[in-house]
Amino acid sequence: MITIKRLGKYTVEMDKQPTIAAYAAVGSRKESEGPLGKQFDKIFYDGYLGLDTWEQAESKMQTEAVEIALEKTGWKSKDMDFVFAGDLLNQCVSSSFAMRSLDMPYLGIYGACSTMAQGLLLSGIMVNSGAASRGVAVTSSHFCTAERQYRFPLEYGGQRTPTAQWTVTGAGGVVVSDSVGKVKIKEGTIGRIVDMGIKDANNMGAAMAPAAAQTLIDYFSDTKKLPEDFDVIFTGDLGQVGSNLLYEILQKEGIHIKHRHKDCGLIIYDRETQDVHSGGSGCGCCASVLCSHILKKMEKGEYKNILFMATGALLSPTTTQQGESIPSIAHLVHLSV
Amino acid sequence: MITIKRLGKYTVEMDKQPTIAAYAAVGSRKESEGPLGKQFDKIFYDGYLGLDTWEQAESKMQTEAVEIALEKTGWKSKDMDFVFAGDLLNQCVSSSFAMRSLDMPYLGIYGACSTMAQGLLLSGIMVNSGAASRGVAVTSSHFCTAERQYRFPLEYGGQRTPTAQWTVTGAGGVVVSDSVGKVKIKEGTIGRIVDMGIKDANNMGAAMAPAAAQTLIDYFSDTKKLPEDFDVIFTGDLGQVGSNLLYEILQKEGIHIKHRHKDCGLIIYDRETQDVHSGGSGCGCCASVLCSHILKKMEKGEYKNILFMATGALLSPTTTQQGESIPSIAHLVHLSV
Repeated sequence: MITIKRLGKYTVEMDKQPTIAAYAAVGSRKESEGPLGKQFDKIFYDGYLGLDTWEQAESKMQTEAVEIALEKTGWKSKDMDFVFAGDLLNQCVSSSFAMRSLDMPYLGIYGACSTMAQGLLLSGIMVNSGAASRGVAVTSSHFCTAERQYRFPLEYGGQRTPTAQWTVTGAGGVVVSDSVGKVKIKEGTIGRIVDMGIKDANNMGAAMAPAAAQTLIDYFSDTKKLPEDFDVIFTGDLGQVGSNLLYEILQKEGIHIKHRHKDCGLIIYDRETQDVHSGGSGCGCCASVLCSHILKKMEKGEYKNILFMATGALLSPTTTQQGESIPSIAHLVHLSV
Repeated sequence: MITIKRLGKYTVEMDKQPTIAAYAAVGSRKESEGPLGKQFDKIFYDGYLGLDTWEQAESKMQTEAVEIALEKTGWKSKDMDFVFAGDLLNQCVSSSFAMRSLDMPYLGIYGACSTMAQGLLLSGIMVNSGAASRGVAVTSSHFCTAERQYRFPLEYGGQRTPTAQWTVTGAGGVVVSDSVGKVKIKEGTIGRIVDMGIKDANNMGAAMAPAAAQTLIDYFSDTKKLPEDFDVIFTGDLGQVGSNLLYEILQKEGIHIKHRHKDCGLIIYDRETQDVHSGGSGCGCCASVLCSHILKKMEKGEYKNILFMATGALLSPTTTQQGESIPSIAHLVHLSV
């Protein structure tokens, strides 16, 4: 008996169907003012969370997301067999500092904004293979830590381009288990790196759309499924520019997803009133949308089958300064009740 | 039937025993002049590898390590079901830029210098679970990219402290398979983050030694094995300072490993003549020692059972500047012929 079956070249099917035992999302004032604001578990109105630095604040959001999720299960962090964590900061320090106090076997991952899907996928494999009974996938981002690391000092007040996205200040954590929970991790597709030569670090939606398209094409080809088999295909975070480009690329392949598609970066904020340009972004964007909105709808039975595909731009400020283009990736998870 | 069995709290045992089909190590002039120099697959005498930047050079070393390893198997990169890759650069760009051209399903990981052990462990789980038939674990470091990112511009010629380690310019890549190869991945222990409050970023051996001790204690406790069950216990990279501290901590627990222990950071260079202070370090250190030296000895039957435990300091220049201490981790893999 094989517990994990390969479907086609890029997709794995989990036969024991690891389940999502609990989840939690935390955010800041801006996220609370968006359309999903009321669905977050906790909102921090102070961007520092009462700490000394924004980096400490981001770490604390990750810890909070995990602790709130764990509270819902009755398990302690020491009952976890692993945690997959990652974030956007250099050397993923939000994650390592956040998880330092929780004493869980720690597996650091880096997928930029695709981190939540990568963590979920690997968590599913860990649990389904018998390597673990239960564990955690978590990620975060913070507008202030990202802005000053990737772009300009906050005090500079730099002008943003129309294609720019707004980094979500938030975190999402999921407890994956071999037994408890309604929502199942059914399949996953590991992305390949795609680089179409886009060099504009303020237009990451355009850089990531081809990677998203490729992973969807791989998934549909591997599983013989259609967009119509899913209530929603969630991407995170292509924003408006990237979403339109994704439709265009897929249409050329005869795949039409527009009627089924939602982008986490487009539903977390109200673009009319919240001045976020092309939409939200950051590891914490699709992680907090998953843990505030998507999983709740699934538990209520409003969604039965969804695809959760998170996209990541695998650049750094150094590579941008050196004139390099932006390699991108998208990992996909099929969730089902 | 369970393909992966949990031993105790932190260790997994792989029953199908995924095998190492091939491996390759590349390095620079300095590594070629060390005691293991002749065992590298390829040496680059130009630190730029003929490219424009050191970052491009480091990426190229990763690509080379994977391509040379794959050549030995007869497989192409497109035959691989995954690659786990990571490195020390911000946003792990050595890895993403290196793997961009190879079209393998890509899973970015970040464990600082513990990356090679983390990649091997996860590769074993992927293959043993049926999620993959074969894949790659690879990592790299480069003295010049690390020095200017973590410490000072190269041109500055900063004085190094006696506890400092020298970042290896090198890469190691391993092809893990479900069928081909003599050396088996038998067990793995996922590390937990340990932070004993060390704040000196020029003394990472001391910061990492407690994490190494904890993982070894966990492994011996989970498996009921003893240091004497192994030909060598390899750590990477504690250097001289960290190794001595490791012996001290373990002795208090009644565990004596000194007679069985080698540190990759201490065997890659000749400390008498190569001016590397406390030893080598960087993701590429234990990765290239594994792929130049350890696995060859195992294939020849000179070593039958070894522990390969890589340690990582999960800090960033930002956290150091903010006065934070250094969270550390160590992941362990038991290799056997």
